[in-house]
Amino acid sequence: MSMEVFLSNKRGILLAYDQGLEHGPTDFDERNVDPTFIMELAAAGRFNGVVFQKGLAEKYYDRRVPLILKVNGKTNLVKGEPVARQICSVKYASELGAKAVGYTIYAGSAHEDIMLEEFGRIQEEAHELKMAAIAWIYPRGEAIKNDTAPEIVAYAARTGLEAGADAVKIKYTGDVESFKWAVKSAGKAKVFMSGGPKAPTEVDFLTQVRGALDAGATGLAVGRNVWQSSDPLRTARALRKLVIENRSVDEALRA
Amino acid sequence: MSMEVFLSNKRGILLAYDQGLEHGPTDFDERNVDPTFIMELAAAGRFNGVVFQKGLAEKYYDRRVPLILKVNGKTNLVKGEPVARQICSVKYASELGAKAVGYTIYAGSAHEDIMLEEFGRIQEEAHELKMAAIAWIYPRGEAIKNDTAPEIVAYAARTGLEAGADAVKIKYTGDVESFKWAVKSAGKAKVFMSGGPKAPTEVDFLTQVRGALDAGATGLAVGRNVWQSSDPLRTARALRKLVIENRSVDEALRA
Amino acid sequence: MSMEVFLSNKRGILLAYDQGLEHGPTDFDERNVDPTFIMELAAAGRFNGVVFQKGLAEKYYDRRVPLILKVNGKTNLVKGEPVARQICSVKYASELGAKAVGYTIYAGSAHEDIMLEEFGRIQEEAHELKMAAIAWIYPRGEAIKNDTAPEIVAYAARTGLEAGADAVKIKYTGDVESFKWAVKSAGKAKVFMSGGPKAPTEVDFLTQVRGALDAGATGLAVGRNVWQSSDPLRTARALRKLVIENRSVDEALRA
Amino acid sequence: MSMEVFLSNKRGILLAYDQGLEHGPTDFDERNVDPTFIMELAAAGRFNGVVFQKGLAEKYYDRRVPLILKVNGKTNLVKGEPVARQICSVKYASELGAKAVGYTIYAGSAHEDIMLEEFGRIQEEAHELKMAAIAWIYPRGEAIKNDTAPEIVAYAARTGLEAGADAVKIKYTGDVESFKWAVKSAGKAKVFMSGGPKAPTEVDFLTQVRGALDAGATGLAVGRNVWQSSDPLRTARALRKLVIENRSVDEALRA
Amino acid sequence: MSMEVFLSNKRGILLAYDQGLEHGPTDFDERNVDPTFIMELAAAGRFNGVVFQKGLAEKYYDRRVPLILKVNGKTNLVKGEPVARQICSVKYASELGAKAVGYTIYAGSAHEDIMLEEFGRIQEEAHELKMAAIAWIYPRGEAIKNDTAPEIVAYAARTGLEAGADAVKIKYTGDVESFKWAVKSAGKAKVFMSGGPKAPTEVDFLTQVRGALDAGATGLAVGRNVWQSSDPLRTARALRKLVIENRSVDEALRA
Repeated sequence: MSMEVFLSNKRGILLAYDQGLEHGPTDFDERNVDPTFIMELAAAGRFNGVVFQKGLAEKYYDRRVPLILKVNGKTNLVKGEPVARQICSVKYASELGAKAVGYTIYAGSAHEDIMLEEFGRIQEEAHELKMAAIAWIYPRGEAIKNDTAPEIVAYAARTGLEAGADAVKIKYTGDVESFKWAVKSAGKAKVFMSGGPKAPTEVDFLTQVRGALDAGATGLAVGRNVWQSSDPLRTARALRKLVIENRSVDEALRA
Repeated sequence: MSMEVFLSNKRGILLAYDQGLEHGPTDFDERNVDPTFIMELAAAGRFNGVVFQKGLAEKYYDRRVPLILKVNGKTNLVKGEPVARQICSVKYASELGAKAVGYTIYAGSAHEDIMLEEFGRIQEEAHELKMAAIAWIYPRGEAIKNDTAPEIVAYAARTGLEAGADAVKIKYTGDVESFKWAVKSAGKAKVFMSGGPKAPTEVDFLTQVRGALDAGATGLAVGRNVWQSSDPLRTARALRKLVIENRSVDEALRA
Repeated sequence: MSMEVFLSNKRGILLAYDQGLEHGPTDFDERNVDPTFIMELAAAGRFNGVVFQKGLAEKYYDRRVPLILKVNGKTNLVKGEPVARQICSVKYASELGAKAVGYTIYAGSAHEDIMLEEFGRIQEEAHELKMAAIAWIYPRGEAIKNDTAPEIVAYAARTGLEAGADAVKIKYTGDVESFKWAVKSAGKAKVFMSGGPKAPTEVDFLTQVRGALDAGATGLAVGRNVWQSSDPLRTARALRKLVIENRSVDEALRA
Repeated sequence: MSMEVFLSNKRGILLAYDQGLEHGPTDFDERNVDPTFIMELAAAGRFNGVVFQKGLAEKYYDRRVPLILKVNGKTNLVKGEPVARQICSVKYASELGAKAVGYTIYAGSAHEDIMLEEFGRIQEEAHELKMAAIAWIYPRGEAIKNDTAPEIVAYAARTGLEAGADAVKIKYTGDVESFKWAVKSAGKAKVFMSGGPKAPTEVDFLTQVRGALDAGATGLAVGRNVWQSSDPLRTARALRKLVIENRSVDEALRA
Repeated sequence: MSMEVFLSNKRGILLAYDQGLEHGPTDFDERNVDPTFIMELAAAGRFNGVVFQKGLAEKYYDRRVPLILKVNGKTNLVKGEPVARQICSVKYASELGAKAVGYTIYAGSAHEDIMLEEFGRIQEEAHELKMAAIAWIYPRGEAIKNDTAPEIVAYAARTGLEAGADAVKIKYTGDVESFKWAVKSAGKAKVFMSGGPKAPTEVDFLTQVRGALDAGATGLAVGRNVWQSSDPLRTARALRKLVIENRSVDEALRA
């Protein structure tokens, strides 16, 4: 039940690729629509982990990079209070080679209770099979006005810790100081910044990541900012410099 | 858990006959209301598979053609956000001789979560019993304005891949180019075009099928366009020419 | 899993007595309120089966007539979209001596999915214990304007066949021709006409039954038209003549 | 699964004390708020049974009087259509020494289906463990205008019989004649009149009980009219004369 | 299943720290946001128990102080009728070293039935594993106007007793006399006053606690009034004097 397998120098960069279910193929182009491309990128880019839904893991995962199996999910076609239920058993995730399960909790949703309960069960099953449990905590629903407000992000982080997550994936608040509080709220649960949509420039993105690291984050889970990049391997190298080697944005950009 | 049993020359034509539950007998006439007629047609027309609900499989299936057992379903009498739950266990489907289970997911429905979860469980059970899992992905519900819009069809295809379907049944978008994107989005999940309601002419229908094949589809699941045809066996021969022998619409029509 | 035990000359008359739960005692008088009276009537009237809820089977059933245990039910005090869930396990039904389970599906109700799913599970359990599964298919709910419209009755019949019912209990459409289509839609599932409320005269009732038989029905499930009759045994004899001996209404009335 | 243990001369008086959960302590005073007082009263008053929720049975029940464990319950703080789910397992009830389980069904509630289903399961479990199943049938919800109307009370009684209750607890209709019909509707299920709120005078209360007995009731389940009495033991003696010794109200009052 | 482990001189002070999930980190400062600080405080302050969610127990609990594992919870981001479902299994709580489980029931909520049922199951599992079951009973929802009204607090206490709680955590009513009734209503279930938000002054807080003890409470569960205190250990000492040594507020303040 350790996150160690996903870390180098106590830092980790996870390649997220669950957008096909969450957003649909509109996030993709001719190249990155193909999970084979992503699997290659994960290996060549020396990512510390790759995030797949069960269907991709079954058909494309080749065990070169540690796997986080996302065990719940939903389409964005549905309106109303969000809920995503388990679609992959923990046992099956383990058989597919996963070293961790990922689960999204929409904190603040009218269906929050369903997800907190389900994560509770999944977390125990994962730990029994020596897998880590990583929580994507996304405050959402009518009650949430701004999901990157510092107090909301800190609450998300804490929710993950309290619920037993070994690591939480949360959005960046926008500045180091307020994100520090979120990291502190997460306690011993490791914090991974959510990459989010493609940033206007690479500097913008790396600056955010640098901020998260300076605030105490363990790393990030990044998708679109890598595989929508014109040169994903170069972005991967830059991130590695920044995160694993703990360099500045400038040094990383020169990678 | 292979689709091979449903393919000839890597292509497949499935005879769909789950309309009795989904639409009621209004789709039928004196001849095709009788499942015996369909079973004969499936064999004589050399279909690669036949799709039945459990009741038909129990009383009419004779194992001459590989069986896809549709394990969920609903009537169209119900209004509101669509949901269809499991009505046949995977174990029972296997005992009835099925080589695959079929399951409809109404992506975009307010009850999408119930179906994604249920399919997730069914898919794992099917694979354990060496059966394929085929997903009918039908975007529906108040949130869906046009269920053949290219981005919606591509999202449907991708949803099936991500959820672990071995094959997806989706609607045709209307043109080759946009359907290519749907096929690409489905990745290694095989794409079967949904036959849909009876087309105005046979040429219209075959042209659609040709388009789907040119876009990369593995085949189609067809019901009304065959068994509502004045000469179902002739239509079956034409489809075989078109799909399995990969001929043109003109050549197929001369079959 | 055969209906044979409920048939004479391939025809069957089932004595329905689940009205106590479905309608309340308003259907009863001082005599027929007593299940002992019904048990005697079932035996003396040579019915092919008797329909009880679990409570009546436990306290009154004496095994002289084959038992159909109704395993779901509801009161008519509840308003809104109808739903009736399982209240007797299949195993317990078998221990009580039942040769079949009966289950009501309110097709078209907003809760249809719950009942289709539950019937699916019950049907498999029943077949494992060598019991038949009989579906009462009653289209109901806001979406249903007229539950004896021919296309609605045919849809009900077909729903039963598709869902795996060995027999369906449906309402009479009012004329032979349209009921023929319902019977055809039911395929190999045997059709039992629902007796319904007390008909104005015995001739009216027997004429309906004759119509159903002429349309291909296997028989009927009758309650109020027998046990609300001034001479239930005479009505039973008339029905036997009509149904089992396949006589005319006139001949039956002379019984 | 017999009610015998709760009867003397085929009659029974059950001391009901589930009001703490159902109504809150407003029903209590300094004396009767204490379950020890009730346990003593049950023994000294020679009641045929005592009704407790699991918490009281665990901490106060001493096995001097047969126990009916109430296995569902709710507070009256909740508004809307009533529902009470199982809060004590049948197995645990048995371990606590219960000879019967009690379960409330709010017939007519929009959630009636949940309770009928749950009672169905509980009743079978109870019978397997040789315990009786007693149903409190309370018609309630928006659809119910008057829960002591004769046809409503008779429906309640019948619902209990059909669902497999060994005994039903129902409200008194107000007169012997109409209650007779309710008792008849309950068939072999024994009828216990519900004591209800404290009657204006003891004569009023005993007259009601006498009416219920004359109508065929087996006895009553009484709470407030005993333990809110100024002299509970005297009331208990009066009830014993009336119910068990089948005396008149006058004779009972002289007890 | 005894509360003994949490008591000294039949009194107990529990250090509550489930606010991270229930309220979010807004309750915390740089020091008390860290569960290590709380664990140290629990030991150094000689608390009789410490209350953690599973995530904190897994990562911070060191067994120096008896553990109450809170097995359900929710964020306060969700609006509408409150519900909190189980997020930690009783078995897992036991493995983490807990001597009791804690569970919140929102009495009066439209979802009360879910929580009463879940607590019922959890309570039995806890007793089987020799753990106590402590109920946080918080009347809440649209139907509750004032959750410290004497009759509401007494109802909360009684609900816990009836449902089988070994101890209840309830709010203080504000005066000794009315709280006495609540304590009486709780019977043999031990009453712990809920500490609530930080009181204006320490005297205010200790006076409330003294009132609860004088009314018969076993002790209190306190969080913010201790760990938001400028000198938590001093507050702990004062509480110990007051509660365990049963001194006056003045004596306690001199601690």
